[in-house]
Amino acid sequence: MDDDSRTEHWERRTEVPLGVASLLFLAAYAVRVLALDPSDAGQVLCLAVLLAAWAVFALDYAVRWRLSGEGARFVRTHWLDTLVLLLPLLRPLRVVRVYEAVLHRHGRPRLALHARVIVYAGLSVALLGFAGALAVYQQEHAEPGATIRTFGDAVWWTCATLSTVGYGDVSPVTPVGRLVAVGLMACGLALLGAVTGSFSSWLLQVFSQEDEPTREGPGDAEGPPGK
Amino acid sequence: MDDDSRTEHWERRTEVPLGVASLLFLAAYAVRVLALDPSDAGQVLCLAVLLAAWAVFALDYAVRWRLSGEGARFVRTHWLDTLVLLLPLLRPLRVVRVYEAVLHRHGRPRLALHARVIVYAGLSVALLGFAGALAVYQQEHAEPGATIRTFGDAVWWTCATLSTVGYGDVSPVTPVGRLVAVGLMACGLALLGAVTGSFSSWLLQVFSQEDEPTREGPGDAEGPPGK
Amino acid sequence: MDDDSRTEHWERRTEVPLGVASLLFLAAYAVRVLALDPSDAGQVLCLAVLLAAWAVFALDYAVRWRLSGEGARFVRTHWLDTLVLLLPLLRPLRVVRVYEAVLHRHGRPRLALHARVIVYAGLSVALLGFAGALAVYQQEHAEPGATIRTFGDAVWWTCATLSTVGYGDVSPVTPVGRLVAVGLMACGLALLGAVTGSFSSWLLQVFSQEDEPTREGPGDAEGPPGK
Amino acid sequence: MDDDSRTEHWERRTEVPLGVASLLFLAAYAVRVLALDPSDAGQVLCLAVLLAAWAVFALDYAVRWRLSGEGARFVRTHWLDTLVLLLPLLRPLRVVRVYEAVLHRHGRPRLALHARVIVYAGLSVALLGFAGALAVYQQEHAEPGATIRTFGDAVWWTCATLSTVGYGDVSPVTPVGRLVAVGLMACGLALLGAVTGSFSSWLLQVFSQEDEPTREGPGDAEGPPGK
Repeated sequence: MDDDSRTEHWERRTEVPLGVASLLFLAAYAVRVLALDPSDAGQVLCLAVLLAAWAVFALDYAVRWRLSGEGARFVRTHWLDTLVLLLPLLRPLRVVRVYEAVLHRHGRPRLALHARVIVYAGLSVALLGFAGALAVYQQEHAEPGATIRTFGDAVWWTCATLSTVGYGDVSPVTPVGRLVAVGLMACGLALLGAVTGSFSSWLLQVFSQEDEPTREGPGDAEGPPGK
Repeated sequence: MDDDSRTEHWERRTEVPLGVASLLFLAAYAVRVLALDPSDAGQVLCLAVLLAAWAVFALDYAVRWRLSGEGARFVRTHWLDTLVLLLPLLRPLRVVRVYEAVLHRHGRPRLALHARVIVYAGLSVALLGFAGALAVYQQEHAEPGATIRTFGDAVWWTCATLSTVGYGDVSPVTPVGRLVAVGLMACGLALLGAVTGSFSSWLLQVFSQEDEPTREGPGDAEGPPGK
Repeated sequence: MDDDSRTEHWERRTEVPLGVASLLFLAAYAVRVLALDPSDAGQVLCLAVLLAAWAVFALDYAVRWRLSGEGARFVRTHWLDTLVLLLPLLRPLRVVRVYEAVLHRHGRPRLALHARVIVYAGLSVALLGFAGALAVYQQEHAEPGATIRTFGDAVWWTCATLSTVGYGDVSPVTPVGRLVAVGLMACGLALLGAVTGSFSSWLLQVFSQEDEPTREGPGDAEGPPGK
Repeated sequence: MDDDSRTEHWERRTEVPLGVASLLFLAAYAVRVLALDPSDAGQVLCLAVLLAAWAVFALDYAVRWRLSGEGARFVRTHWLDTLVLLLPLLRPLRVVRVYEAVLHRHGRPRLALHARVIVYAGLSVALLGFAGALAVYQQEHAEPGATIRTFGDAVWWTCATLSTVGYGDVSPVTPVGRLVAVGLMACGLALLGAVTGSFSSWLLQVFSQEDEPTREGPGDAEGPPGK
């Protein structure tokens, strides 16, 4: 059994537990940030869950480092994993991969490529947006001069940012909040790219089938843009 | 006659009546929201039309549920229909399908794919934008601290949102208004995707014909972007 | 000589004069709007040029109507020409076609398709943006509560709108100004579609040539996005 | 040895020195603009570096002009080089080309086309954005009525502009600052085009391979949009 297959084996075995840990991490973070009346017990429990989940992530990183047999180069070649370890709020993206794996295991027929891209992009953006809104709310809500005062404001601002609309009626004022915002803008650009690219390639595909127009053709053609 | 063909038969027969009911619903809603001096009689009539149209939608949903023979699964497999039943302002999108069907019946030559995508996207966005502007206006105009005070403001804000420009000089402040806004942002993203994707695939098509340049080629090539 | 060929003949003969008339129209409008100290003579001259240019447009429309032999249907089948007759500020778009024709006549080698799309989209957007900035400035600058007070503001706002950035630090407040703004937003969407679509199809083309990578390949690949 | 090959020879030899000079120019400009306590010696040194780097650029331009043997036409046919000579802040874009050349020389395997487009677009946008933020900060920070007061504000505003989000909470008010802003908007449009086009063509490529679905397929499919 060589290194690659052992890494693969490890990744297949840990997929679901890591996905669950990611969701727990996000939930504990959300409770910590949003709890209106922070009782000591609840806060401590949340902190414990956060640390435990992060320990699981670190363990997974360490095992995969070991299995790769790469030494110090691993940090650079797997820079994405390193980044996610340091910024565990990006972790929930893993859930998208777990969702794919679970669908696969249950023998569900896979969606068409365009639908899959839209579903995955939507799921990723929803998770990242939720994590981003939490982080910005935590940074901003107590700041003097802040316009993001409630979690509702933070969600509203996140939606305006991810769609690249950007009203600017509320916007972050702290350096950390703005750093999160820049990350969300990049997500917005990528989302736009996913929607547009998906639509464009779907159109091209329909187009190449247009020579033999059938009744299903146009109905199908209304799929992606349909709300 | 099996279930599928009966559903299809039903859909063909109800297409035009449902389209008319959708437009009536939108018109009655518009009158109710925009009426400056709400006389009792007019308001009651509008309400009656709204309820009647909604009853028609519910009936259609029930019949199709029955015909599908699917039981409780129908709600999930036809989640789009379920959503539209609960949010009947999305209903006017049906008009786009009716328009297609009527064109088809009259034996009109169908437009080229790119033109069709642009026309359908434009029509959908215009109908959704109108419904969205009405809903936001209704929610916001009497709110203290609101910036959307007239229906003109609401339309202006809708245009800025759908094009993802987002000035932010006027913007919703109520939770429901912001929820509608998020829906419109998603429409804006989809519209951008439709315009861009359509343009992109059209360019690729022209490109593949460029080897034998004719006089019509370049003229045709100015079509889509031309205002 | 049938109708079509006579129309074509007419269009070829009038292309350059109409282009010149369009530019004169735009120039006269610009002088009228921007003249700081409107002397009577200058204003009257500008008005005369405006009316004369419009008369030329109307004459061209009438001749083409006659040549088409279509009767009242012409207004509908040539709705774009009808619209441009009523909104002569859209006329300068014709210049793009004249530019193409002049290049063609001088036997200049035509640009590659992607470059042509970018050049035409840029030229169209520049002309429409200039006309739009003039129209918005004329409507807004004397309005109480307006934020667009100088022509510089109007140009700045136009750029922010056409790129769909939309800061909202200045924005139109009058109904007519907002109507022009909606038109510019549509141009912005189309421009985005042109840039994106052009880039996308160019990438696909490079990609299909990637199998035999040459030194020119990557250098060429930096073309479109390069500033 | 004809003119073309001598130009090519010159360009290959000067690639790395010019890239280094470009980075020095940017660094010296950054120090000059951002230095909080401008000691005379440091400022003079920065100015000297700026002038020296610009002299190197001018020399390179002159030599290439000479080698081209084109006379006055060179200014027009190489308008991009002329522009970059006059606006040396655009110069760091050269670094992208140097990066490519260095990778090539070290025999590193070239990235896939989509990854390369994303990397180059990201690098170009980061360099241009940094230069733009510096220029806008220099123009705006001491202006009465300015909202861009710190370099942090300038960077935040640059990110919002490049992603076409455009909050408008801070925005330039001086003519020169706005001119830079328009340039950044154009970059933002191009970046959007690069992201979208890259995604779109990548999707099309995956799609054409979908007929034989493998385990790697979907994993690979999450590459570009993955954060």
